[in-house]
Amino acid sequence: MAAALALSERTRARTFPNPNVGCVLVRDGAVVGRGWTQPGGRPHAEAMALDEAGARARGATAYVTLEPCAHASPRGPACADLLVASGITRAVVALGDPDPRTDGAGLARLRAAGIAVEVGIGADAARRAMAGFLTRRALGRPYVTLKLALSLDGAAAMADGRSQWITGPEARAHAHLERARHEAILVGRGTWEADRPRLDVRLAGLEGRAPLRVVLSAGTPAAQERDPRWTSTPAGIASLPADHLLIEGGAGTAAAFLRADLVDRLLLYRAPILIGGGRTLPDIGLAALGDAHARWRLADSRQLGSDRLEVYERG
Amino acid sequence: MAAALALSERTRARTFPNPNVGCVLVRDGAVVGRGWTQPGGRPHAEAMALDEAGARARGATAYVTLEPCAHASPRGPACADLLVASGITRAVVALGDPDPRTDGAGLARLRAAGIAVEVGIGADAARRAMAGFLTRRALGRPYVTLKLALSLDGAAAMADGRSQWITGPEARAHAHLERARHEAILVGRGTWEADRPRLDVRLAGLEGRAPLRVVLSAGTPAAQERDPRWTSTPAGIASLPADHLLIEGGAGTAAAFLRADLVDRLLLYRAPILIGGGRTLPDIGLAALGDAHARWRLADSRQLGSDRLEVYERG
Repeated sequence: MAAALALSERTRARTFPNPNVGCVLVRDGAVVGRGWTQPGGRPHAEAMALDEAGARARGATAYVTLEPCAHASPRGPACADLLVASGITRAVVALGDPDPRTDGAGLARLRAAGIAVEVGIGADAARRAMAGFLTRRALGRPYVTLKLALSLDGAAAMADGRSQWITGPEARAHAHLERARHEAILVGRGTWEADRPRLDVRLAGLEGRAPLRVVLSAGTPAAQERDPRWTSTPAGIASLPADHLLIEGGAGTAAAFLRADLVDRLLLYRAPILIGGGRTLPDIGLAALGDAHARWRLADSRQLGSDRLEVYERG
Repeated sequence: MAAALALSERTRARTFPNPNVGCVLVRDGAVVGRGWTQPGGRPHAEAMALDEAGARARGATAYVTLEPCAHASPRGPACADLLVASGITRAVVALGDPDPRTDGAGLARLRAAGIAVEVGIGADAARRAMAGFLTRRALGRPYVTLKLALSLDGAAAMADGRSQWITGPEARAHAHLERARHEAILVGRGTWEADRPRLDVRLAGLEGRAPLRVVLSAGTPAAQERDPRWTSTPAGIASLPADHLLIEGGAGTAAAFLRADLVDRLLLYRAPILIGGGRTLPDIGLAALGDAHARWRLADSRQLGSDRLEVYERG
C-alpha cells in the first residue's frame, strides 16, 4: 500500500476533478503491475496497472488507495469491472470512495465476484494523499494550504513591504516544488498589483506546470479572466477548477482565509533572522488565547539550508 | 575536560564576579578529585578538587576549564601555587584567564615547576560555559539572553496584552530553569507596572534562587532600590552586579536591547498557535533585509510538550 500511495503522489493536483489514485498488483510476491491516475484523470490507476500486468493479473492481489469506481464513463469502463475480469483474487483498499456513483458499490461488485476484499489499510496516509479530492467531496471546496515565509519574529516583509529575501535558496526551491502540487495559487490584490507574480514552477523538469493564478480582491473586476482569475471572497474559491489551492500572500490575504476558517495546512518557512516592526499577520478574529490552542498539529519539519520548514495540519 | 565543564555548570550565575570553573584530577585512569567554583566565588574549583584528592594528587593530571589563578587573596591562596604544591605532573587547561592578575602567569608558574601544560582542549565549550565571565571581561557588561515566548506568527501577546498562556507548562518550567542560570532578570516598565512579576524560580529544589529584578524605564526613579533595581537605558546593565542577564519582556524592551546590539543569545519558545494582530517585535533599526542575515546561529533546539525551544547565539 505504501508503494501504491507513493505512485498516487505522481499526479497530485493533475487529475482534477478525479482523485489521484495509486495501484500495485502483486502475484507470488512479485509486482506485476503498477498504475496511477494519469494527468487529466484518465486512465485510472487500476486500468494502467492491469494493462501492464496483462495475463499475470490472474490470481494477483490488487493494492489500491481508493475504492475502485463502479461507474463506466465515455472515457473508460468501471475499474471494479476491469478488476473482476482480470481474475485477481484479492483486493486491499485503503479508503472507500465517497463519490455517490461508487460509495460502496465498487467493493460490493468485487465481493460479488468472489474477490477477497480488505478495507482500511493505510487509510490515514491515503486521506493525506487524496486530501484535495476528499475535501472537495466533503466540503465542496479545495484543500487549502497557506504558505508563510517568516522571520523569527513573524514578519513576512519589512514595514515598507520588502521581502526579498527572507528565506534562502533551498527554502525558495522547496516552495516552487509545493507550487507543482497545487492546481491553483492565490495572492491578494496588493501583492498582485505590486509584484505581478508569475506564480509558476521554476524547477528543472517542472517548467511546464502552470498553476491557475487567482487574485483575491474585495471589488469585483469588470470581466472574469482565465488568468488571473479573480475572486471577491475567500469562500469564492469553491468555484475554482482546483482541488488544491496554495495561498501565497500577503499577510492580509492570509488573515482573511484564517478568519474564514478556510486553511487546512500551514507551510511555514522560518528564517533565522529578526526583522522588527515588519508586516505580521493581522487580526484573524481570535477572541481568547485558549481558542488558539489545539488547532494545529505538526505534520512535518525539516531543515532547508539555514531555514526551517514546519508543516502544520488541522489538529 | 567534558566532566570538568559539566561540573562548572553547577554554579553558573552563582560565582559573580568570579568565573564558574570546573576541575577534575585523574591519576592512573581514576578520578581522584572533583571541584567547581563554590557559590559566592570561593573556594575555587582547583582548591576543592585538591582538597578531595589529598595525597592522591601527586603524579595526577589536572583538567581545568580556566587557567589557574596566579593571585593570592585574603580568601585563599593562588590555585597555581596549590597545584604546584600538590605534586601534579600535568595540567590540561581549556582557556587562558583574561583577568590581568593571571593572564598567562598561572600557566607560567605551572610550567616553571616542571608541570606539563596543554591549553585549548574544549576551548569552545569552555567559552560557552563561562560566557558571563568572559563577556564581562571583554565588553564590561553581562552576557545577555533575550527570552521570547511567541506564537507561530511572532506574537508575544494578544493586542490587548493578554499572554497567559501562549506556551504550555513544559516550556514555562524550562523558562524557570533558565532563570536559575541568571543573576539578574530584566523587564520593561510596562510589564512591571502591569504584572509586578515575581521573576523567581518556581521549581522544586530551586526555590531559594532569587535573581535580582531589574526594570528598564525611560525615566529615572526617585531612589535606586535594591529590588527591583531600575535602569534608564539598555547600556545601564553594565553596572549590574551580574554576569548573566535574562530579558523577559515586553516586546518594546526586547526591541530596545536588540537595537542597542546588546543581545548575545535568543531563547525562543514557540507555541503551535496563530494569534493574528498580536504584539510583535517593534522596530529594531534594521535598514535592509540583507543586514538581518548571518547574525544568529542555531545552538540548540528541542521539543517541550507541544512547544518548540530554539536557542540562537550570535553568529
